[in-house]
Amino acid sequence: MLVDGKHYRTVWFEEGVVRMLNQPLIPHKFEVADFRTYQESADSITNMVVRGAGAIGATAGYAMAQGVLSAGDSVFSEDVEKAAEYIRKARPTAQNLFYAVDRVMKSIQGKPPEEARKAAVAEAEAIASEDAEACRKIGEHGADLIRDGFRIGTHCNAGWLAFVDWGSALSPIFVAKRQGKKVFVWADETRPRCQGARLTAWELVQEGIPHSVIADNAAGYYMKRGEYDMFIVGSDRIAANGDVANKIGTYTKAVLCKRHGIPFYVAAPSSTIDLNSPDGEAIPIEERGEEEVLSMFGWDSQDTLGTVRIAPKQSSARNPAFDVTPAELVTGIITEKGIVEASREGIASLFR
Amino acid sequence: MLVDGKHYRTVWFEEGVVRMLNQPLIPHKFEVADFRTYQESADSITNMVVRGAGAIGATAGYAMAQGVLSAGDSVFSEDVEKAAEYIRKARPTAQNLFYAVDRVMKSIQGKPPEEARKAAVAEAEAIASEDAEACRKIGEHGADLIRDGFRIGTHCNAGWLAFVDWGSALSPIFVAKRQGKKVFVWADETRPRCQGARLTAWELVQEGIPHSVIADNAAGYYMKRGEYDMFIVGSDRIAANGDVANKIGTYTKAVLCKRHGIPFYVAAPSSTIDLNSPDGEAIPIEERGEEEVLSMFGWDSQDTLGTVRIAPKQSSARNPAFDVTPAELVTGIITEKGIVEASREGIASLFR
Repeated sequence: MLVDGKHYRTVWFEEGVVRMLNQPLIPHKFEVADFRTYQESADSITNMVVRGAGAIGATAGYAMAQGVLSAGDSVFSEDVEKAAEYIRKARPTAQNLFYAVDRVMKSIQGKPPEEARKAAVAEAEAIASEDAEACRKIGEHGADLIRDGFRIGTHCNAGWLAFVDWGSALSPIFVAKRQGKKVFVWADETRPRCQGARLTAWELVQEGIPHSVIADNAAGYYMKRGEYDMFIVGSDRIAANGDVANKIGTYTKAVLCKRHGIPFYVAAPSSTIDLNSPDGEAIPIEERGEEEVLSMFGWDSQDTLGTVRIAPKQSSARNPAFDVTPAELVTGIITEKGIVEASREGIASLFR
Repeated sequence: MLVDGKHYRTVWFEEGVVRMLNQPLIPHKFEVADFRTYQESADSITNMVVRGAGAIGATAGYAMAQGVLSAGDSVFSEDVEKAAEYIRKARPTAQNLFYAVDRVMKSIQGKPPEEARKAAVAEAEAIASEDAEACRKIGEHGADLIRDGFRIGTHCNAGWLAFVDWGSALSPIFVAKRQGKKVFVWADETRPRCQGARLTAWELVQEGIPHSVIADNAAGYYMKRGEYDMFIVGSDRIAANGDVANKIGTYTKAVLCKRHGIPFYVAAPSSTIDLNSPDGEAIPIEERGEEEVLSMFGWDSQDTLGTVRIAPKQSSARNPAFDVTPAELVTGIITEKGIVEASREGIASLFR
């Protein structure tokens, strides 16, 4: 997508270096960050310099390529295995991370080091490009659901910053806009890290799409007043039965949509689907540090990145990063292959 | 309640001056603020130096007393009427504000200025003391619902800082603790102003009650895991049919409790009930400034009160301060007169 008229991907690979937009600085500052080793690249996932299903997948693929490039000839498979293990630990809920590591691992199987190095880079590039292309197609399929004048809710950021390009939940909105439809977006701020207020709002500003940021608490109020036509979210992992893991608070929005008869769609490339997770219970949920809840970061009065503490020093917090929305609350899953029912049958139809 | 061993009320009257705890500074700083005129006192409500149903009511009563004390003898009723009008505009959703203004107005009816001044101060003091006593009784009634080991959710702050003393939603928890029951509290942080993370957490620290602060997004996750035994909230206004206006996000929690079979109680003195509002539709909902959503305030690295901006400068926000929970989602209303059903009959039984 374009930033001030120039095309960027969220993450890309240049001469062995993983380069990405530094997401914690957005919307206040636009900066490219470089990571030269697989450890640095994996840590950029853990520290959320990069976040979002597809962007994590692409970064993990590139990190694996770095691991393969730097593996010593004499201890090649040990070094590669070590890199894979390190990268897999970066974020436990993200399906695309495991998908990308496994694909690069498979691409080098049985190859001698020099050939494997070329294959790993090519595979990582393929993962990134397929992600961008899948998201473009998700946009086309999803835009069919959007009518002129629709008011659409979204949670967290599943825009192009969460992928390599285009995004999942926001891609149908970007495409609908280009088709000349008028759309309005209710952007949940999405505490604790506020990716909705920071990233989704920033993408919508870039695309010139009217929107309001709201506290996560306020969506129910506007739903009750009839001010939503649909809701679209992304996903970090979809189980084989259609249960959906996504940013904490997604489940709550799905429950509210059910009550108010608002269609609740999940948009995700099929690489997000984990056939090895029979249902949502099988998806591990990452718990992050309590300081994300007890504090908030943002641009301070000195115009630099600062943090304010909200809660008493003696209080502690709990911080689950994701929750699982049961398939029964999901109206449909928008993938690059089309829109399917959130059910075992719907999911299976994508892999036939 | 006690702060570091010394008893305080949230707001009190000393020689014509309204004195109150400066709530935006809590939990970081403990400070008493003074307001010498009815305009200053009313503005302290608008600016949320004081907030919460009962504390607003007591402040409005004292502000009216200031208005009566300062009214000129020759233009007495005009001045008093002007004060009442000014104070009524401070916050449109708060029932206790109107209740207190009307009570002081009634207490001076037909009295000559000097007598009216004494009556107004006495009535304002009565309002404050009745609030404290009602909250103590709410605690006793509500504690009967709490069993040993209960894990209780709450939203915003309906503790003693929201009243003159004891609180409404937290009072049963304070009483249960004193009865020797073990309780644990899930404190919603309650964006945008985070009264849960700031004030409820601070009160729980003072009382030594185990608790975790969570993002408003996380309650659904823990409910789904079976980690809530009940939910108690306060209210800013209760309609004659049992519909409940309370802090934005309350409705969402009630919907989640319904889905998970978790009892959802509202605790409020009967002064919060507005028989002139036939149902929730009749309750005006205040919309506050967007900067509360786009930013967050707290203690910064210089250990002073600072603000950080979260969203892009080009984005706007919507900020409804309250929502209405329909009576059908409310398990019961805990008042100083006992626990009643959230229905027209239940409400009516309190006034027989």
